[in-house]
Amino acid sequence: MATHKLLLLPGDGIGSEVMAEVKKVIGWLDAQGLASFAIEEDLVGGAAYDSCGQPISEEAMAKAFAADAILLGAVGGPKWANVHYEVRPEAGLLRLRKDLQLFANLRPAMCYPALADASSLKRDLVEGLDVLIVRELTGGVYFGEPKTITDLSDGQKRAIDTQVYESYEIERIARVAFELARTRKNRVVSTEKHNVMKTGVLWKQVVSEVHGSDYNDVTLEHQLADSCGMQLVRAPKQFDVIVTDNLFGDILSDVAAMLTGSLGMLPSASLGAVEEISGKRRALYEPVHGAAPDIAGQGVANPIAMIGSLAMALRYSFGLIEAADRVEAAIAGVLADGYRTGDIWSEGMTRVGTAGMGDAVIAEL
Amino acid sequence: MATHKLLLLPGDGIGSEVMAEVKKVIGWLDAQGLASFAIEEDLVGGAAYDSCGQPISEEAMAKAFAADAILLGAVGGPKWANVHYEVRPEAGLLRLRKDLQLFANLRPAMCYPALADASSLKRDLVEGLDVLIVRELTGGVYFGEPKTITDLSDGQKRAIDTQVYESYEIERIARVAFELARTRKNRVVSTEKHNVMKTGVLWKQVVSEVHGSDYNDVTLEHQLADSCGMQLVRAPKQFDVIVTDNLFGDILSDVAAMLTGSLGMLPSASLGAVEEISGKRRALYEPVHGAAPDIAGQGVANPIAMIGSLAMALRYSFGLIEAADRVEAAIAGVLADGYRTGDIWSEGMTRVGTAGMGDAVIAEL
Ligand SMILES: CC(C)[C@H](C(=O)O)[C@@H](O)C(=O)O
Ligand SMILES: CC(C)[C@H](C(=O)O)[C@@H](O)C(=O)O
Repeated sequence: MATHKLLLLPGDGIGSEVMAEVKKVIGWLDAQGLASFAIEEDLVGGAAYDSCGQPISEEAMAKAFAADAILLGAVGGPKWANVHYEVRPEAGLLRLRKDLQLFANLRPAMCYPALADASSLKRDLVEGLDVLIVRELTGGVYFGEPKTITDLSDGQKRAIDTQVYESYEIERIARVAFELARTRKNRVVSTEKHNVMKTGVLWKQVVSEVHGSDYNDVTLEHQLADSCGMQLVRAPKQFDVIVTDNLFGDILSDVAAMLTGSLGMLPSASLGAVEEISGKRRALYEPVHGAAPDIAGQGVANPIAMIGSLAMALRYSFGLIEAADRVEAAIAGVLADGYRTGDIWSEGMTRVGTAGMGDAVIAEL
Repeated sequence: MATHKLLLLPGDGIGSEVMAEVKKVIGWLDAQGLASFAIEEDLVGGAAYDSCGQPISEEAMAKAFAADAILLGAVGGPKWANVHYEVRPEAGLLRLRKDLQLFANLRPAMCYPALADASSLKRDLVEGLDVLIVRELTGGVYFGEPKTITDLSDGQKRAIDTQVYESYEIERIARVAFELARTRKNRVVSTEKHNVMKTGVLWKQVVSEVHGSDYNDVTLEHQLADSCGMQLVRAPKQFDVIVTDNLFGDILSDVAAMLTGSLGMLPSASLGAVEEISGKRRALYEPVHGAAPDIAGQGVANPIAMIGSLAMALRYSFGLIEAADRVEAAIAGVLADGYRTGDIWSEGMTRVGTAGMGDAVIAEL
């Protein structure tokens, strides 16, 4: 059996708590002979900054390049509110995304039937919801230069961020969206602000061209980002795949995740290009939720998004479909059995902590 | 009685239909001797482009500068999808905002009790909702330079947008937010992405400074824009005033508006600075909804947001508090009487069209 090189980067806040539960699942898969892993672990974010003054060390970056897949917990927190911008916790995550060229961020927002009542939305609007947001992750305003704060006269300052997109960046993320739509309901909504932004004009044009030349079988609609935000709230089930840029994707995917009522349940994948020779693609898997410093260290965080991120890695990076199915079935199973962490708890359900939920998943496996 | 110079710019799509209903209300106020108006009217958006090749003519701009207040319907539509970027319909609205320096966009998102069931959200999450989004409107990525599309080699293109903020722009919008909070629940949430954007770093810093020096009595919280989007869906009633930049404000205010279930009901005000000598401030009032080309020309659009925009103008530009109260009471009255346009209709209510709703408001007055 192939040994899969997996790098664990728990990060900050609840990151290490939810990662501890994933390790149980990894141990179980190993013990059952269902998969064989070579595990590395390192620091990222504030934890790395505290240890070496950088939000990710060169050693950790080397491990990231050597890994077949990376599991990341979360980064950031008020503790590092005043560290210099260049070495803030988030810079570690952003460097991983950029240096590994993980340009395609897949954020499924699905509503677990057992949790439909946890949504803010009326049940019929979210029951069965299954939207996939495909977010461009290595371009746009996150990385464009100049990105500066300058002192002017009189104590005034000027801050600048630059949103840059080149055609090839839009084309490759559009292709990912169209390919994924073909495995789903065959519909893509492309989202930008072409009425205000030149990057939006180019985005719309390139997505239309890619569609016209290679994906005419997929239904394509263009929506302005503000309208898309509205439509997500009004009638989320109209969507299948949404493709959008780094910044709009950040906000819209968080809104979509919150709609499901299952924020602590949602994994994500950040994928690079398929390499010509090896056929491999670099990949990082992480929960959609953040470091949640307000509940960190209390053992109450929901580990399911993190465990689901492992399942995505099994499926997309290692081709271990059976193992992935099994982990996902176990997650569905514990929910059906009524196990709930605080974020999704409701009357009559069995309240468990982080470790309790992890143990329940193992028991279900 | 003072005569108020009011410029009407119906614009595109449903703009002229909803503006027709406002004219009835203006006529009624005039006839009752409650207010005296000198009305001008002109074209903006696609309608102006069709007539003169520009999304707003120099004559219309001159009228805008001469007016005490402007009422605008909406701009844009698929008809103008292929006109040159510089003269697209939206450029007319953006020029008005920029040239008149209407830097403060006030977008109240309130849930009319009679309409709480029209929301996607569960009733208890939105009943009594009253959030005010204060959006910066003359800066940021909307207006920053460079804003270009360049041809590279091999048919590749590069698009650039630039987000620029100077301290004074952030300071003045923060002051508006704090002042308004004092007339409300005294709480401000400031929203940016300081973990990714330098404009976010400066935004957070300036808002904190203004708060620390002059508004310590107001509660200030900072939220990242993605978290704010989430929180709006999760528990919108936690918010009183949200202050944010032009682009985040565009998306978050649309999400907030949709939460109320009353999109067709929500007016907005875009205000300039108070002028030193006259004590006046330039102002433009418009519905939060757009041109809705899909229902334009059918006489079914909801005119209440447009009529509510007039009420805001009466209140904030003309100091006609009594008249403003009366118009707003009439709106509440027709809702209580069960009149509903299609967007807010539900079983058992009286379905009316655009003109029917306008007439009902007049009857209620
Ligand atoms: C932590 C932060 C830099 C990050 C982002 O803005 O991309 C996060 O919000 C996300 O969505 O993964
Ligand atoms: C029409 C468009 C240019 C405008 C904007 O993006 O500001 C609209 O969406 C709004 O929010 O007023």
